[in-house]
Amino acid sequence: MPPRSRTVKGVKSVRFADTPESASFRPTGTGTLARRFGLLFAAILTLVVLSVIRINPTSLSAKLGEGENIVDYDRPDDDLQFCASSVPRGARPPAPVNPWAQLSMYELVDVQSWLTQPGLGLNLSSVDELHPALNYIYMISPYPPSKADALAYLEDPSENTIPERHARVTIHHGGVEYPVIRDYLLGPLPTNEKTRLRPLEDIYHNEIKFNARGVDVKDWNLGNFIKKVTEPIKEAMQVLLGGAPNDGIVPAGSGPFSFDGSFRRMWMGWKRDTSGFFMHPLNLFQYVDFSGSDPSLWKLSKLVYDGQVFSNTTEFMDAFHNGELNPVPTISPEESDLSWSTRVRKGPKRDLDDLPGPRAVSFGGVRFRVDQATQYVSWMGWGMYLSFDRDIGLSLWDIRFRNERIVYELAPQDALAQYAGNDPFQSTTAWLDRYFGIGLAVRDMLPGYDCPHEAVFLPATTYSSAGIFSRQKGICVFEQDSGRPITRHLGYEKNEFGAVKGYELVVRSIATLGKMKFALIFDYIFHLDGTIEVRVSASGYLQAGYYNPDALDYGTRIWETTMGSLHDHVINFKVDLDVAGTSNSFQKTTLSQEEIDQPFYDEDWGSTTIQQRIDREFIETEDDARVKYPTNFQGGYSIVNQEEKNKWGHARGYSIHPGYSPIHSTLVGSKRLLKNADWAQYNLAVSRRKETEPSSSSMWNMNLPGAPPVDFAQFFDGESLSQEDLVAWINIGMHHLPQAEDAPSTRTNTATSSFFLSPLNYFDHDVSIESMNAILLNMPTEPGAPFTYDDYGVKPLQCVPPAVPPFTYEAMQIFDLEGKEVPAASVGELRKASELYHRIQVEL
Amino acid sequence: MPPRSRTVKGVKSVRFADTPESASFRPTGTGTLARRFGLLFAAILTLVVLSVIRINPTSLSAKLGEGENIVDYDRPDDDLQFCASSVPRGARPPAPVNPWAQLSMYELVDVQSWLTQPGLGLNLSSVDELHPALNYIYMISPYPPSKADALAYLEDPSENTIPERHARVTIHHGGVEYPVIRDYLLGPLPTNEKTRLRPLEDIYHNEIKFNARGVDVKDWNLGNFIKKVTEPIKEAMQVLLGGAPNDGIVPAGSGPFSFDGSFRRMWMGWKRDTSGFFMHPLNLFQYVDFSGSDPSLWKLSKLVYDGQVFSNTTEFMDAFHNGELNPVPTISPEESDLSWSTRVRKGPKRDLDDLPGPRAVSFGGVRFRVDQATQYVSWMGWGMYLSFDRDIGLSLWDIRFRNERIVYELAPQDALAQYAGNDPFQSTTAWLDRYFGIGLAVRDMLPGYDCPHEAVFLPATTYSSAGIFSRQKGICVFEQDSGRPITRHLGYEKNEFGAVKGYELVVRSIATLGKMKFALIFDYIFHLDGTIEVRVSASGYLQAGYYNPDALDYGTRIWETTMGSLHDHVINFKVDLDVAGTSNSFQKTTLSQEEIDQPFYDEDWGSTTIQQRIDREFIETEDDARVKYPTNFQGGYSIVNQEEKNKWGHARGYSIHPGYSPIHSTLVGSKRLLKNADWAQYNLAVSRRKETEPSSSSMWNMNLPGAPPVDFAQFFDGESLSQEDLVAWINIGMHHLPQAEDAPSTRTNTATSSFFLSPLNYFDHDVSIESMNAILLNMPTEPGAPFTYDDYGVKPLQCVPPAVPPFTYEAMQIFDLEGKEVPAASVGELRKASELYHRIQVEL
Repeated sequence: MPPRSRTVKGVKSVRFADTPESASFRPTGTGTLARRFGLLFAAILTLVVLSVIRINPTSLSAKLGEGENIVDYDRPDDDLQFCASSVPRGARPPAPVNPWAQLSMYELVDVQSWLTQPGLGLNLSSVDELHPALNYIYMISPYPPSKADALAYLEDPSENTIPERHARVTIHHGGVEYPVIRDYLLGPLPTNEKTRLRPLEDIYHNEIKFNARGVDVKDWNLGNFIKKVTEPIKEAMQVLLGGAPNDGIVPAGSGPFSFDGSFRRMWMGWKRDTSGFFMHPLNLFQYVDFSGSDPSLWKLSKLVYDGQVFSNTTEFMDAFHNGELNPVPTISPEESDLSWSTRVRKGPKRDLDDLPGPRAVSFGGVRFRVDQATQYVSWMGWGMYLSFDRDIGLSLWDIRFRNERIVYELAPQDALAQYAGNDPFQSTTAWLDRYFGIGLAVRDMLPGYDCPHEAVFLPATTYSSAGIFSRQKGICVFEQDSGRPITRHLGYEKNEFGAVKGYELVVRSIATLGKMKFALIFDYIFHLDGTIEVRVSASGYLQAGYYNPDALDYGTRIWETTMGSLHDHVINFKVDLDVAGTSNSFQKTTLSQEEIDQPFYDEDWGSTTIQQRIDREFIETEDDARVKYPTNFQGGYSIVNQEEKNKWGHARGYSIHPGYSPIHSTLVGSKRLLKNADWAQYNLAVSRRKETEPSSSSMWNMNLPGAPPVDFAQFFDGESLSQEDLVAWINIGMHHLPQAEDAPSTRTNTATSSFFLSPLNYFDHDVSIESMNAILLNMPTEPGAPFTYDDYGVKPLQCVPPAVPPFTYEAMQIFDLEGKEVPAASVGELRKASELYHRIQVEL
Repeated sequence: MPPRSRTVKGVKSVRFADTPESASFRPTGTGTLARRFGLLFAAILTLVVLSVIRINPTSLSAKLGEGENIVDYDRPDDDLQFCASSVPRGARPPAPVNPWAQLSMYELVDVQSWLTQPGLGLNLSSVDELHPALNYIYMISPYPPSKADALAYLEDPSENTIPERHARVTIHHGGVEYPVIRDYLLGPLPTNEKTRLRPLEDIYHNEIKFNARGVDVKDWNLGNFIKKVTEPIKEAMQVLLGGAPNDGIVPAGSGPFSFDGSFRRMWMGWKRDTSGFFMHPLNLFQYVDFSGSDPSLWKLSKLVYDGQVFSNTTEFMDAFHNGELNPVPTISPEESDLSWSTRVRKGPKRDLDDLPGPRAVSFGGVRFRVDQATQYVSWMGWGMYLSFDRDIGLSLWDIRFRNERIVYELAPQDALAQYAGNDPFQSTTAWLDRYFGIGLAVRDMLPGYDCPHEAVFLPATTYSSAGIFSRQKGICVFEQDSGRPITRHLGYEKNEFGAVKGYELVVRSIATLGKMKFALIFDYIFHLDGTIEVRVSASGYLQAGYYNPDALDYGTRIWETTMGSLHDHVINFKVDLDVAGTSNSFQKTTLSQEEIDQPFYDEDWGSTTIQQRIDREFIETEDDARVKYPTNFQGGYSIVNQEEKNKWGHARGYSIHPGYSPIHSTLVGSKRLLKNADWAQYNLAVSRRKETEPSSSSMWNMNLPGAPPVDFAQFFDGESLSQEDLVAWINIGMHHLPQAEDAPSTRTNTATSSFFLSPLNYFDHDVSIESMNAILLNMPTEPGAPFTYDDYGVKPLQCVPPAVPPFTYEAMQIFDLEGKEVPAASVGELRKASELYHRIQVEL
């Protein structure tokens, strides 16, 4: 075993396998001192340890571990060492360029600068003056090369084969006669004389109706719109809601805004303006029309108070003054404890909770590698490139295991959340979070809380019309012990008895979605046997409703005036599996019951027996390829390569194995999700991979349920799935019937859903047996002797682990379009950028 | 925060909260030395750390963590301390006696000694001379007190209220005219003049048919039975199977033995006698009849070679000699590499796998408490007593959270495994592992491999006719970091932003079941929010079949001559929930789709909307209480107390939340599981709790599918479930379609199944917010400043963790019936005790 740590004595030198520079490190002048120190240290250690042993027998609890947890044996060395650094070693990506890399600050500035060149005639306005009736850049995002180009490069990485780099650009053309939104492709990058901008018409309807456009920070107060619909009813608000805009209450909008782009309207619901305001809905709703690009034409078109409908403010105020309203209970913030919707610790201290819980330390140094330049990560035979964009956040590319590509692309596509209720807001809400940007909603993670202390963080940069957001801790990578062996057996024959430890690599990103309501923890977990676990866990605030007894058909009362409203979450993933190559087939296995007779059955039991049988079939075309898990999970689905067999003659494959909460959407036919989220109706679907079908959704889908740019159903048009390049579109999700324990925050332990991609006769045997963090025991040769064992030379180390740096957390950096850091934003600016219309700051 | 560790300087003293004896510990004579050492140590540390920082910029990988993972800040102390001991502090059980405690060695010896007193007339033989025609003690097991007695004691623990202690005793009455098996109750214990033995007729049919009796180590070679049926065909075996008994091949038996006790017969299949012999089946099967107690009457009744049936050995040998057999391929062990069925590490070394993976350390000392005397464990508001017995192994009792009982009893009941195939062995196998003893099959766990290094192990003792087995590491307890926060939120209002770390307590036991074939890892995982996760993970060898192409309807070829055979595992748990008391109801929630109109719906979207709704109902009687999870998991089941409401008016409840692989048995109507495992047909069932229905199964059920002592269906006889003391019987399981990756051992990551018991409006809010291992952030008051935060004073500690003791593993201790340790058994004896008839040592 190579030396893995530096000695306190300074005699041994640091040696990182991949940092030869450091091998020459010799601290000078400390050798003798350190040697003396080492001896002293060992002496003290021994003394203290002996004392502990002396004390133990007097304590009941201490007796327990006697001989188990006490240091009472000879140490191999008489000097205690510092542990190896927990900085990961450098990774060696298969190719020096990440073809899918997120756009760098430099690239974003380059693209933005290129687009504003006068000759193009785009007539772009500065983001400082955003207005629906102006032309401006809404988004710049990385655009992946074709798979053919990327694979050609990976097969033969050279300057000549590097795929051209492109950006996707979205421009809000508000300043033209017929306002419209267009997606473009811009490249090659960096910009040069060959760089061109072309409409991205092959994958999206190129022209997005203006009423389905993206939202901007500054949209809402234009033309004093909110003021216009609010001021006339302030008097009633004070009485009925217990507050006034900017003074105790705040509005939020629902979605979608449109069915087919012919209008842009939303329900605006009022909430108590306190911490956790999503949990404090009130009972007044305004239906507002903000179609078109002229805010002066925007108007209120309906008003609902506690189920009573009014077609304008005058009607409403008349009813208010005539005593025709039935005021519902409201809560005085002064008299009520509103801290239930904050995350302030409360309740009794739990026993020993003043001690920190167990913390994982890689005493020999962390075992994963990271190449920061390419955002390439490797661990125990696994390797992958990372990417990041506004729409979907973290994605993983060219995932290889033991030198074979398993997955070309693994990425979330969209996240659906559809609510139920008996008020206009909850009963009409159907979010598709890609509209708001899953990547845009990623914030820095909390070291030690969101990821373990040894995690390595990677940056994530995105462009929006509010600026370039740079998160230093947008992604984290860490190794963890699953807490159980991945395999183990106790047997008495030679070499039957042993265990392999269940280590895993986790790649994580957390998006605070649903417009700052809840966090989705996206985890990609890599196992030693070739299994990839894709898991999403949710926490955060509910989008609550106003409590009334009738609402209990749609939820649970969780506070005085608050309902937790029933809703479905479904999240779709694109999994471009390449199983032993790109020619793959879609296999379905069914387990059923048969009654058979065999000549050998005995009359004791009758001449027949009832047993299970397996039926294997290939789903031949896309027509049959949107599927649900079988009842009682009797069977399953896999992607296999019929032309590549393992040693035993079975087609090499990867199974799509359901994990936690393997659900699909409950609803069928809802007009608000009519054609824009067809994927949510199934557990999974498999289609032929096409460059023109890169995603199951788009950011435009939310507001166009009747005419979505991406209509997933149209992917399934009868094409053959037999030995083609296939993509699996796999759902996870949760039927969320809230409960009191969702306050203040939903718990990740039960709010979690997952699937596994797991080798299925892909290998000839389980390859996790390769692990050296394992043990093999054999029976003692003499009765009474201990078992002999082989631990492959891997033993727990004792050394002094590095201290954990003090916790710090800083706001995400925001850069302007020239790449200059914007002076640290105020709280208000930051939250506006995040909350969009989910908490509308009323400017009166 | 109290001092949590002792300083190297020796100035601060050790202080364990519960070990006042240790508070007086003062190492003498080391103070000055240690103080000097501390300063030196700090100096060296600083030097080395500075050197690391200097080196870093030259290394690409090191740059990554710059400022993240490097120790480059002031330490609060200038002396490095030893971490607190990892020996757990003593727990404080609610009552000083564990009413369900496993039987101690003393008690087992006491019972056995009492039973052998001549006056009783049981005429017991010594276990040394076991024979079906003798009377002997087959089992002694703890028998729990009535729930009423136990609760009375827990409410008012005193000498007077301690429930009387009893043992269950099983006696094989083979030495009587009509041999029979009887279960008895013996008590009170310790034995005294009041101690009596009475038939246990209220919970089992008292008389178990002799042909359904338990198996013993010495059963098989009696009367040279195996020799008798084997010797005449040795010549054919050598040719057809490539070996002879004791020379390359070994037989194993299938089950069940009987339908209703009228016969005792099994298929005996031959296997290659090599490591992992379960994976080496051959194609010869003998149907043997060993009914009754006279081995001289036992006989062969059929013989099958590759589907050809022969009614006796003469027929078979004639066919062999006449060339009427079609020899199937066999593998020469000399010419083939048989190591695929061993656990020897093979394959390339993975990158950095020579380093140990991350290891969890509780730097402030472990946070769970253990009282070894009562086997009581507590952690973070949780507390529970443990028990252990032969039939089911580990069980948990009086599980409380925050001073309220949640579960009275949580225990596995039985584990079903039913196979499919086209040979007589696989197609007729239906195991119920309680017959063999789930507890009896528990062996010592491997420290650091089966449980993390900080785990505390507890002993488990069982009685069998082979002796008293004492395992020092039969149970382990440890705290783990789930790797993700249990709740977190990022918000911009005051006190919205923070996270609670996701710590969990695990109580584990591993049974190597299926007769040494596979390990079931039983995990009980306790969460900070009141959730209990019950998870079983499987690893180990398959019960394989002989490969032929027709067998592919029932499995997968995994080696030259080996099939992985399709089988179902279903494991039933008894969960005696007491939700806010013992008066509980069984609630079913259904989520469905409705189309409704509301006056406020707008004509934009039509006048109706399609949304989800909730229907809640109580399942009123046992007749409707055997249930399956709804399609697409739209709804669920819970146990609630209708008379106890939370603050918001909802009945306090606990939900039964499906986890991984929430399946039930595929087959209905199989004669081999006709009435003895009715529980396996559903996902869960709820019945009224009765002392006379203590378990869903019994060890006798396996061999009596037609007339089982416990017929679970009979529990469901129309009784009210409305505000009664209820028991939920919950299944987990797996449809196991084997694959190449099951060799050598099935992988726990996908071979796992679980359910959650989770608070459902039980509280008024999520109580995990009580955790101090949490952080609360607030926005910077000045733009650009870091966020302010409160970590409740709980910070990562830097100290020197104790070394991990070298790995050792010793054989389970076996004691004789006087409690004297039996000299360490030979390998052969140990394996015979484990394998029973699943690998029959042929004594020729």
